[in-house]
Amino acid sequence: MARVKVAVNGYGTIGKRVADAIKLQPDMELVGVAKTSPNYEAFTAVKKGYKLYVPKENAAKFEKAGIQVSGYIEDMINEADIIVDTTPNGIGASYKPLYQKFGKKAIFQGGEKADVAEVSFSALCNYNEAINKNYIRVVSCNTTGILRTLCTINSKVSKIEKVRVTVVRRASDPKEVKKGPINSIVPDPASVPSHHAKDVLTVMKGIDIISMAVVAPTTLMHMHLMNITMKEPVRREDVINALKDTERIVLINSSRTGIGSTAEIIEVSRDIGRYRNDIPEVVVFEDSVYSHNNELFLMYGVHQESIVVPENIDAIRAAMNLADKNESIKITNDTLGLMKGYLI
Amino acid sequence: MARVKVAVNGYGTIGKRVADAIKLQPDMELVGVAKTSPNYEAFTAVKKGYKLYVPKENAAKFEKAGIQVSGYIEDMINEADIIVDTTPNGIGASYKPLYQKFGKKAIFQGGEKADVAEVSFSALCNYNEAINKNYIRVVSCNTTGILRTLCTINSKVSKIEKVRVTVVRRASDPKEVKKGPINSIVPDPASVPSHHAKDVLTVMKGIDIISMAVVAPTTLMHMHLMNITMKEPVRREDVINALKDTERIVLINSSRTGIGSTAEIIEVSRDIGRYRNDIPEVVVFEDSVYSHNNELFLMYGVHQESIVVPENIDAIRAAMNLADKNESIKITNDTLGLMKGYLI
Repeated sequence: MARVKVAVNGYGTIGKRVADAIKLQPDMELVGVAKTSPNYEAFTAVKKGYKLYVPKENAAKFEKAGIQVSGYIEDMINEADIIVDTTPNGIGASYKPLYQKFGKKAIFQGGEKADVAEVSFSALCNYNEAINKNYIRVVSCNTTGILRTLCTINSKVSKIEKVRVTVVRRASDPKEVKKGPINSIVPDPASVPSHHAKDVLTVMKGIDIISMAVVAPTTLMHMHLMNITMKEPVRREDVINALKDTERIVLINSSRTGIGSTAEIIEVSRDIGRYRNDIPEVVVFEDSVYSHNNELFLMYGVHQESIVVPENIDAIRAAMNLADKNESIKITNDTLGLMKGYLI
Repeated sequence: MARVKVAVNGYGTIGKRVADAIKLQPDMELVGVAKTSPNYEAFTAVKKGYKLYVPKENAAKFEKAGIQVSGYIEDMINEADIIVDTTPNGIGASYKPLYQKFGKKAIFQGGEKADVAEVSFSALCNYNEAINKNYIRVVSCNTTGILRTLCTINSKVSKIEKVRVTVVRRASDPKEVKKGPINSIVPDPASVPSHHAKDVLTVMKGIDIISMAVVAPTTLMHMHLMNITMKEPVRREDVINALKDTERIVLINSSRTGIGSTAEIIEVSRDIGRYRNDIPEVVVFEDSVYSHNNELFLMYGVHQESIVVPENIDAIRAAMNLADKNESIKITNDTLGLMKGYLI
């Protein structure tokens, strides 16, 4: 079977990870990656052997920096069957006409508005809705974390009546040096509800959800504190068993392992040799799972740099109709080494 | 009228602020402050003219450091009518027998277990229960913030059915250099509910409250994200008006003032010349007040270093029966310059 040719437009936090993930897929081929500025990530792309494409108007800058480019962005798009757009928030939509001009499918990220695509996507929730679609939007890291958790509980434990969630966001990614805060808690936004609830609704349509969010001065992971009201009381063990049995969700038991923070989660990821210490799984604090009458409480960490990577891979398969939901998720998990059950 | 003689045992974050506040009260006299180690705070106490008392076994250390002491801790206790114990968490209880030996009343802090005292205290909620009591415990900074807010809503707006609150704690006080985290979000504890709900119950007995908490790497303020279910729907304006009309609560309108974080709140406190940039009021983000059917959402900041200071002053008055609730709160607010309404 011919492999699907995938191009990655944008080579930052998400783009470089998606490119690496594509290289590991048996049914995909990486055409190349596109980048607009000749920074250190452009050097590493070339060093890794990825074909690098650039905007025509920036080609001279790359040449001056001594970075060998393989052509212009249009060349890359022309050669691809599908483009994963990982350009910065809001820029993706401005590239859509180019993808359309070449008649190519595209996967967008959560930083774009929902209407950039035919469907917003979270693999465990709505893979089937994305099959054969031309434009798919992988929801943001926070929304991916919320959706993986809610879809699992809603389908494997019992029906959800409403969700009230606090999102404590990381301030910046580890590589960023110009963003803050470095000593403040910032309501994000100060008004309630935050946009996360609205974004969840693009996939779990009609669910009663309200979110509040603050930014905290840390780079490692987001943290979500969830209060779910169920239609009937649920047992803590049933929730834990459902989470334990779900791909792309891992549990940590703080009392048993001494892991009690996002820093320690990332340290385990480093210790077990994960590339870039990524941990694309939702990481649930088992100790936090608390059942009280009809209510369910839990806390989990979301690794903002990597959680959407497997979703992008599945979105490609859905768009190209390469595999059904379970097949795609299995291939992605196997190739990326994603776990379920206890992290350690 | 003879002024009440107050001694402050412990001269750290809370103790030094309480001592300063006592100096401003027309009905109180500061006997002195007690400290166990000759650090910079001991120097400033002497510089400010406070009589410094030390443990007998540590007197030589102070002498060696060139700090003039006025006697031993027992001398201070003997001379006082009442002691405000601001020793570190859990140490206060070990001093109680000494206060009892001298037959003196004492105010403890929220770091002690509730059973150290006859009553846990939050001025707006239960001043009257503390009148003439010998041992009163001022609840912790987070609990004080929660109680001020809940008692106001419950008494001025409508009855509360249940409270679900997320506490995002500051990691350390500005002066601390050995505590973290500096780059992590730490569930505190990983299990649900956190102790804050339990502590609220020592004052608002029987209320249905569940709290979850994380620590974030910041020093300035705690932040609370509240979801209150009311017994009946409430109007946003009524909630805002009640908060606006309550002493020791201030509002900020982010859209109007551009104050959108704890850092900017503290900057205003600096700009308006508050001593040590303290802001003992609960600082509510007006934009966050959101009413949805029977539910009410809001976010506010809690200045952990100073919020309990006015409570300690009122607790002294209650214990000594110097004034009724409204009188005491008024004197405290006037002398400390506490505001209500909009911060700016």
